[in-house]
Amino acid sequence: MQQAIAILDSGVGGLTVVKEVMRQLPQEKIIYFGDTARTPYGPRTPAEVSLFTRQIVDYLMQFHPKMIVIACNTATAVALEQIRSSVPVPVVGVIHPGARAAIKTTRRGLVGVIGTEGTVRSGAYENALKELSPFIEVISLACPRFVPLVEQGRFRTAETRQVIRQTLAPLTGYPMDCLILGCTHYPFISEAIAEAMGPSVTLISSADETAREISTVLYHSGQLAKASQLPVHQFFCSGDPVMFQKIAQEWLGEQIRVTPVVWQVPQIL
Amino acid sequence: MQQAIAILDSGVGGLTVVKEVMRQLPQEKIIYFGDTARTPYGPRTPAEVSLFTRQIVDYLMQFHPKMIVIACNTATAVALEQIRSSVPVPVVGVIHPGARAAIKTTRRGLVGVIGTEGTVRSGAYENALKELSPFIEVISLACPRFVPLVEQGRFRTAETRQVIRQTLAPLTGYPMDCLILGCTHYPFISEAIAEAMGPSVTLISSADETAREISTVLYHSGQLAKASQLPVHQFFCSGDPVMFQKIAQEWLGEQIRVTPVVWQVPQIL
Repeated sequence: MQQAIAILDSGVGGLTVVKEVMRQLPQEKIIYFGDTARTPYGPRTPAEVSLFTRQIVDYLMQFHPKMIVIACNTATAVALEQIRSSVPVPVVGVIHPGARAAIKTTRRGLVGVIGTEGTVRSGAYENALKELSPFIEVISLACPRFVPLVEQGRFRTAETRQVIRQTLAPLTGYPMDCLILGCTHYPFISEAIAEAMGPSVTLISSADETAREISTVLYHSGQLAKASQLPVHQFFCSGDPVMFQKIAQEWLGEQIRVTPVVWQVPQIL
Repeated sequence: MQQAIAILDSGVGGLTVVKEVMRQLPQEKIIYFGDTARTPYGPRTPAEVSLFTRQIVDYLMQFHPKMIVIACNTATAVALEQIRSSVPVPVVGVIHPGARAAIKTTRRGLVGVIGTEGTVRSGAYENALKELSPFIEVISLACPRFVPLVEQGRFRTAETRQVIRQTLAPLTGYPMDCLILGCTHYPFISEAIAEAMGPSVTLISSADETAREISTVLYHSGQLAKASQLPVHQFFCSGDPVMFQKIAQEWLGEQIRVTPVVWQVPQIL
């Protein structure tokens, strides 16, 4: 049986990675887990995000995936290294791919980053960017109101546009030439973000770039799928499967089957 | 001492990879070998290109590099797998990075590839593209007149523009949305190529994309440089060092020192 790529997120955000993996690597089988019962992760403590990520990885490892993709910036920021040292397969996060793409794109050396409070507070993008290129300047902004809008499926409402314009206003005075969408939920609302930032700013989707990084890592470890038929993907979510399925089908442009997973309260012995 | 990235090419073409590595990974030390005495590789037999590549890799291995980059599409097409299995460090070629970028970029699924006769004859891009995404359509064209123009430093002459326009004419009837510059020499003449192809075609530089793949592979193997000072690069070429230095300094925008290396005829015992 074909080994899958396991992709996880706090909710529907990681579907932006799924869509790009489906497009860039159509032969790869995907198993997705969206922790919609506990979204958003952004305002949570690092310890809590680590625990939740660990639980999802444990759940996904039962399917013997060939790779784990932490398709959530908040979880990547706090749990990537820990997960990497604890599973026997490659683990890809979403922060370094976006950082690499920004470094390739920027000509002025000034990069903007937007993300959840947790991601921005961690300084993970700044660290990744400066690790690669110490002279890069970084301006970061937390956008706590964005993820709930996406999880509610409100991608293009007037209110969404207004929230985005107001939130991003502090960034528009800087001469940055690229802005990292440092949250996998943001590609859902990238049109309004592009509108607010203006045409001189290139948006970098950490989701798109992560799909490419997955391709690179699978190639260099000799693990690209050689499927003769198109794979059937599997989707799990911990919250309401109806809303998840609706958003997923709209975003992916195809019918999917969703299996609900309910987190259990441990039995008192 | 800091371990270097060793980069090789048939001549000055690999300097397009060098420039991007210097920009994207300014802390990395580079050792470059341009085989200007035996350029171009494009019209040579696979056996000859393999032998030449092997000789350069043997020369470079004495510096104990942490990675070998075959920054020549012709050499990547015929010698990558052989070199990969014979040295104890990661080996990065220039074909898969360009293929991956094209797959990320194309929306129509029709990708153009231009390269040397050797690269086009090998079918290496078509194989790499279809290995990742079987539904991609590929149109390839050999452009044997381009490399000599670049090695002579004639990047922007009227004759160069005319040769490029004439050579690329067969491609302009196809509805492709991206064109892979499947030769590391071509970024030197990318302006004229862009002009000939028109604004609807995105050019993919295998050189730029390779710098990013180097970044990804070094990161995932924990080998990114943590230099406190900027590295001093080393350049070797097998032909006239004056012409090499002139082209290199113009392209890289900085002074470099070039060490000539003369291939020896073996002694008769």
